[in-house]
Amino acid sequence: MTSPSRDPAFRTEVGLEDGKAVAELVEATGFFNPAEVAIAAELVEARLAAGDASGYFFVLADEAGGAQSPSRLLGYTCYGPIDGSEGSFDLYWIAIHPDRQGHGLGRVLMQQAEERIAAMGGRRVYVETSGRAQYEPTRAFYSRLGYVCEARLRDFYGTGDDKLFFVKAL
Amino acid sequence: MTSPSRDPAFRTEVGLEDGKAVAELVEATGFFNPAEVAIAAELVEARLAAGDASGYFFVLADEAGGAQSPSRLLGYTCYGPIDGSEGSFDLYWIAIHPDRQGHGLGRVLMQQAEERIAAMGGRRVYVETSGRAQYEPTRAFYSRLGYVCEARLRDFYGTGDDKLFFVKAL
Repeated sequence: MTSPSRDPAFRTEVGLEDGKAVAELVEATGFFNPAEVAIAAELVEARLAAGDASGYFFVLADEAGGAQSPSRLLGYTCYGPIDGSEGSFDLYWIAIHPDRQGHGLGRVLMQQAEERIAAMGGRRVYVETSGRAQYEPTRAFYSRLGYVCEARLRDFYGTGDDKLFFVKAL
Repeated sequence: MTSPSRDPAFRTEVGLEDGKAVAELVEATGFFNPAEVAIAAELVEARLAAGDASGYFFVLADEAGGAQSPSRLLGYTCYGPIDGSEGSFDLYWIAIHPDRQGHGLGRVLMQQAEERIAAMGGRRVYVETSGRAQYEPTRAFYSRLGYVCEARLRDFYGTGDDKLFFVKAL
């Protein structure tokens, strides 16, 4: 059990090992299927290959360890500008390791992403999520951070599984 | 001027020359900026490289010519399944050459795409468009074909430029 009193270390550049680390983290949440886990890792690889031109930007939180211990990824978020828009950004991913959830790390990662989006000229941040009951904590999380559910597409993901668009104006 | 009485020939496989043909067609409509024209051509290249695995499917309409004359692309549509959904499809592109607009070719291309989507197990077709006045004919076209505007994201593309989601249940 990690002590919540030890502040994580934040960084914005992905490294060679982060595709694997992100996949393991996303899988550990139990929220995503194998295809989604693969996509999460692919966005890291895209960033590694093309940098800013990939359109994918990251904030990653590592466990603050001593010089002897390898760092462990505790959470991350991935966002980027929406092609064809002026100042609209997508928040593609946010994931927090299960044993670090509930300590405010998600809120800090979102705030750091929003600050960077604003600095890049972003006006609005969009998050897409499901209307299923399983995602109620996710929706409540976005609402607490000032995101508003602006639109809904019924049965988008499947029968009884709506797609919701949350937005926050910066 | 092409005679509207000469029926076009339809096909679903793209060829090596279609990236250029699609780019020229899309550009000729005057509706798309250079970045969008490039994307239209890239989807053709993706289809050429990976086939069905690209996720991009096409219906193309060529001018029916004699054996001596090279065929000319009159219009096309590009669609595909939405990852992570069960039976939802996106209609990514539809474009008709300006000198063949108003003769029902767009309607026929949409119907052919919808038939193929239904045959692939599709339940719903989504089209995204802009709320700007310039796109009123586009919105009216989708409405005539049974598409309903289900959701709107205000100022998505820019200030005063909303994103609209049209959907048709098959």
